[in-house]
Amino acid sequence: MESKQSLTDLRDALRRFAAERRWEVFHTPKNLAMAMIVEAAELVEHFQWLTPEQSMALPAEVHAEVRDEIADTFIYLLRMADVLEIDLIDAARDKMVKNALKYPALPADLR
Amino acid sequence: MESKQSLTDLRDALRRFAAERRWEVFHTPKNLAMAMIVEAAELVEHFQWLTPEQSMALPAEVHAEVRDEIADTFIYLLRMADVLEIDLIDAARDKMVKNALKYPALPADLR
Amino acid sequence: MESKQSLTDLRDALRRFAAERRWEVFHTPKNLAMAMIVEAAELVEHFQWLTPEQSMALPAEVHAEVRDEIADTFIYLLRMADVLEIDLIDAARDKMVKNALKYPALPADLR
Amino acid sequence: MESKQSLTDLRDALRRFAAERRWEVFHTPKNLAMAMIVEAAELVEHFQWLTPEQSMALPAEVHAEVRDEIADTFIYLLRMADVLEIDLIDAARDKMVKNALKYPALPADLR
Repeated sequence: MESKQSLTDLRDALRRFAAERRWEVFHTPKNLAMAMIVEAAELVEHFQWLTPEQSMALPAEVHAEVRDEIADTFIYLLRMADVLEIDLIDAARDKMVKNALKYPALPADLR
Repeated sequence: MESKQSLTDLRDALRRFAAERRWEVFHTPKNLAMAMIVEAAELVEHFQWLTPEQSMALPAEVHAEVRDEIADTFIYLLRMADVLEIDLIDAARDKMVKNALKYPALPADLR
Repeated sequence: MESKQSLTDLRDALRRFAAERRWEVFHTPKNLAMAMIVEAAELVEHFQWLTPEQSMALPAEVHAEVRDEIADTFIYLLRMADVLEIDLIDAARDKMVKNALKYPALPADLR
Repeated sequence: MESKQSLTDLRDALRRFAAERRWEVFHTPKNLAMAMIVEAAELVEHFQWLTPEQSMALPAEVHAEVRDEIADTFIYLLRMADVLEIDLIDAARDKMVKNALKYPALPADLR
């Protein structure tokens, strides 16, 4: 996550990727939401039979597969945000403010 | 998405958010995968009865709700990646290379 | 699950329910698949922060909510099967035969 | 869906299937909810790039695959209901009563 513009660069790369395959016509928000949840489920699948403890100590091979599924979910989420002209970072920051009101922090001496 | 470090900053803010509520114990990868797909489904819900055309021209109020759901999905995805020590941007870049091999671009004159 | 024809009766009740609200036009397989996974996620939501043990000993109030979510998921699944002219029981039986080949039973002395 | 007891028979067959593989230990409601949504997503995947019209006219091969995914989703849903001692048919009937109050039928002359 080092470089400036990295998320913008990735968004632009995804635009080109879609254009070079003539996929734009399929990339309605409705379809992208479906594709995104399908990838999210492939991520869930890796954890369905694991204990909580096992899920925290994945074998290297499983970790690599999970990394790919996280990437695919992220790719569709970023692509969907782009099609809807939503900035992921701004949206997340704004939502965190709402979430903080909904779930107040514990007093420091109780943490 | 303008500033350097914005994704890293967001990741760190999510770490603090969890710590200030003593939520770390709940944030196993297994549980975060579940929470993430639940948010993904709340996003899907907004589109389930829409035509493809309607999904591309959301009323402002629905667009604002969709923005919040995209944000929540992204927040859990980023939090999950952090717990698993996965860099979202690097993972996405690596996966795009694989995806490009799996789905070759059309020749330029056919696009 | 006592009465003969109970699943067929339920399927027919769902047909009438849709007709009485003029919902048939929305009930494409694509849309029903989306509606079904949204209900499935509302079911998942009840379990996302629970330990495996807690998920096996739900408080009565949570159990009642889970029952409603299971019902909604089942309703959309049955409705989707109907629209696609698929018999749920027959489909499940056929799939169990395939699953048994894929995952052979343990020898009796190892169970 | 013809025979009396067909759903009960299926439930019992799923119990035996789990026992013969020593899978009961994995079949907590939490894990079954995850497995169920994963199958639901495999169903969604078949429809993600289709137009509404295409989703209503599936090629025979796709229809057969969709039938299998509907079956797997149903199998996990029925298994989950069994573990939670919930009767699928009763739960669906009760929920339809609630749904009818929430979404009243149109007057007969407007249908």
